[in-house]
Amino acid sequence: MTSPLRLGIAGLGTVGVGIVKIIQKNAELLGVRAGRAIEITAVSARSKDKDRGIDLSAYAWEDDPVTLARRADIDVFIEVMGGHDGPAKDATEAAIAAGKDVVSANKALLAIHGQALAEAAETRGRVIRFEAAVAGGIPVVKALTEGLAANEITRVMGVMNGSCNYILTRMEDAGLTYQEVFDEANALGFLEADPELDVGGIDAGHKLALLSSIAFGTQVDFDAVELEGIGSVTIEDIRQAADMGFKIKLLGVAQMTGRGLEQRMSPCLVPDHSPLGQLQGGTNMVVLEGDAVTQIVLRGPGAGEGPTASAVMGDVMDIARGLRVSTFGQPATSLRRARAARASVPAPYYLRMQLIDKPGALAKIAKTLGEAGISIDRMRQYDHTDTTAPVLIVTHKTTRAALDEAMAGFAATGVIAGDPVAIRIEAV
Amino acid sequence: MTSPLRLGIAGLGTVGVGIVKIIQKNAELLGVRAGRAIEITAVSARSKDKDRGIDLSAYAWEDDPVTLARRADIDVFIEVMGGHDGPAKDATEAAIAAGKDVVSANKALLAIHGQALAEAAETRGRVIRFEAAVAGGIPVVKALTEGLAANEITRVMGVMNGSCNYILTRMEDAGLTYQEVFDEANALGFLEADPELDVGGIDAGHKLALLSSIAFGTQVDFDAVELEGIGSVTIEDIRQAADMGFKIKLLGVAQMTGRGLEQRMSPCLVPDHSPLGQLQGGTNMVVLEGDAVTQIVLRGPGAGEGPTASAVMGDVMDIARGLRVSTFGQPATSLRRARAARASVPAPYYLRMQLIDKPGALAKIAKTLGEAGISIDRMRQYDHTDTTAPVLIVTHKTTRAALDEAMAGFAATGVIAGDPVAIRIEAV
Repeated sequence: MTSPLRLGIAGLGTVGVGIVKIIQKNAELLGVRAGRAIEITAVSARSKDKDRGIDLSAYAWEDDPVTLARRADIDVFIEVMGGHDGPAKDATEAAIAAGKDVVSANKALLAIHGQALAEAAETRGRVIRFEAAVAGGIPVVKALTEGLAANEITRVMGVMNGSCNYILTRMEDAGLTYQEVFDEANALGFLEADPELDVGGIDAGHKLALLSSIAFGTQVDFDAVELEGIGSVTIEDIRQAADMGFKIKLLGVAQMTGRGLEQRMSPCLVPDHSPLGQLQGGTNMVVLEGDAVTQIVLRGPGAGEGPTASAVMGDVMDIARGLRVSTFGQPATSLRRARAARASVPAPYYLRMQLIDKPGALAKIAKTLGEAGISIDRMRQYDHTDTTAPVLIVTHKTTRAALDEAMAGFAATGVIAGDPVAIRIEAV
Repeated sequence: MTSPLRLGIAGLGTVGVGIVKIIQKNAELLGVRAGRAIEITAVSARSKDKDRGIDLSAYAWEDDPVTLARRADIDVFIEVMGGHDGPAKDATEAAIAAGKDVVSANKALLAIHGQALAEAAETRGRVIRFEAAVAGGIPVVKALTEGLAANEITRVMGVMNGSCNYILTRMEDAGLTYQEVFDEANALGFLEADPELDVGGIDAGHKLALLSSIAFGTQVDFDAVELEGIGSVTIEDIRQAADMGFKIKLLGVAQMTGRGLEQRMSPCLVPDHSPLGQLQGGTNMVVLEGDAVTQIVLRGPGAGEGPTASAVMGDVMDIARGLRVSTFGQPATSLRRARAARASVPAPYYLRMQLIDKPGALAKIAKTLGEAGISIDRMRQYDHTDTTAPVLIVTHKTTRAALDEAMAGFAATGVIAGDPVAIRIEAV
């Protein structure tokens, strides 16, 4: 029997409490599976006296997570505080400097400072693990880094923000506007304190940047993620996309192209019968594609006490068992800086516009598309109101540049009321 | 840089060829990710001269896999020959005795001899890895053994034989009988040389037994799997189940109950809108449930050159990186012998029967169910033919024992033509 693995847990919010519960409930199971005991030595949080419904009396208390990180009697520092700077960053750096392994659920910290942290850890022979930072309880970091380690990864896709998927599916099911469902979700506590992290795609963008790094052997680069939130998605878009056989999802897509690494987190149309199209509510889904495996799809809870704690503890068990894979699947110093390619992969697009009801209007739209080199796959014109008629167009594959040219051309035709909407259709 | 990891590959069928292709194509990627080169030293197969479309000239050749397994210049023995006895077993045992790690795609061998092989390997400090033996390219063994290692696993379910799922979905889509689709699949080479391995549920049962062992810390026990193949599923069952909102799948279910370990591989009804219900064609799906993670679902190709080779190579990469988890997730000597519980978990059932068209017939059926303590959730009677009318019943939850009592009682009523059909409905 090896010596116990001693943990220091910084942060006793939902996830921290979940970790303590697992260790208290499944202690025997963990010991048998890891071949050694898993023990909590010390914990840290903002308020010592808060009642969290768990017994912390057996663990030492630290007010300062940095002090916790440096304790001589911990082997693994678990960071479940959150925040991409401040105490979370200080404590993580302190833990690495003190020779601890780190398990983190902090997507923002790693998406922004991951390269520097990984280099620092690897210099000292330490590992940083972050399964809980991406897609909650789904072991997707492990699947990508280890299970598919022999594949050249060709594309990574995912619905990785449960709140956004909840909002989009609830809009459709209840026939409510974005703002109505947003307010409802906010009142229910489903959104971050700064809701823009969710609905602006930032949180999901952090997760995509982390997966991209592993998939393509590149330095994590959140700034290169093209971000577009769900705030402009209307109930009309959802209904009319459904009418054409699609669902709208906040979809992350990363792929390496001849022009560089493309990372997008934006509303996309996916076929309604695809696994992504069928995903309801707060569940997450990640699609991994590789040259040998073709495609695997992983689905599960993207947040919550138990699932996120399960992911943190999966990493802890790996460390206990002696697995020491580099943070991003290969030595941090071997990760390349990728050139960022923006929207370079052609795709079909869904277009929606209000056509002013006068002779030749539709012909002008078709001509504008044609001049931009875009051909039409399907088109529908709906009953017109007093003066305008909604028109939906599904194009054949085109580039974003050609589409932008056409969108600019639409304005000049004088037959469109308001701004046309364009949403990419992702092949899945 | 550590020394290269040297492989000996026994078997150059579909999977063996796929492994060679991955190593030749992705050599650089593998080296960067593993921190060491991955090299093939020697190969073995039945026919040396067969053209497999790959260049084997750089590798030593062995006619005998046992000789290959014992070569001093290999570190890992890869067994992709198949067969639960004979050369595959001899060579695997020889490799372990010679101190090699083993990576195997052989579900039959491991489901039958897994406990003895794991004990032998662990006595010598060697590992046996078998990701490719279960659900092809899906890294489900890894997800269960490592990703969910902190969970008490509550249930494992899966559609793990692509040929059966192909047959069932093709019957529905094309409106063909079981025999028609079976013949078609057999002609296309979709079935094993002994098709009963597929359609009898044996192959999928092997996989379920392996997952059960990891999930519940028990000695792998294939003989305890309740097996029922898909041969008795009719197109009427598929259609009428669909009418009630269900799909029929060959579903494996393993769960630990108060009465012991229940392992079933049998046709089941699942809700048609569930991920399992939506699974089409030859794709596999595994559902893992744990106390912390709740539920994750993994979907991907269950067979084929690339996907299966991807799984083998994922195991090889783990070994190259130094991961050494016990074969079944905990030391083989700590695995318990589970008592086999048969159908002890109550479930609703779908019943189909031909009711003879005479007054009071339906009342007799309802009475028989009532006497067995079974209550009816939904019932449908369809148009009768000359003398009989199809009747479908969905029961509330009941035990298999009560159901068997009712089934026996039906015969005594004298109002049923032919044998009634009962299919379990699995909550997913």
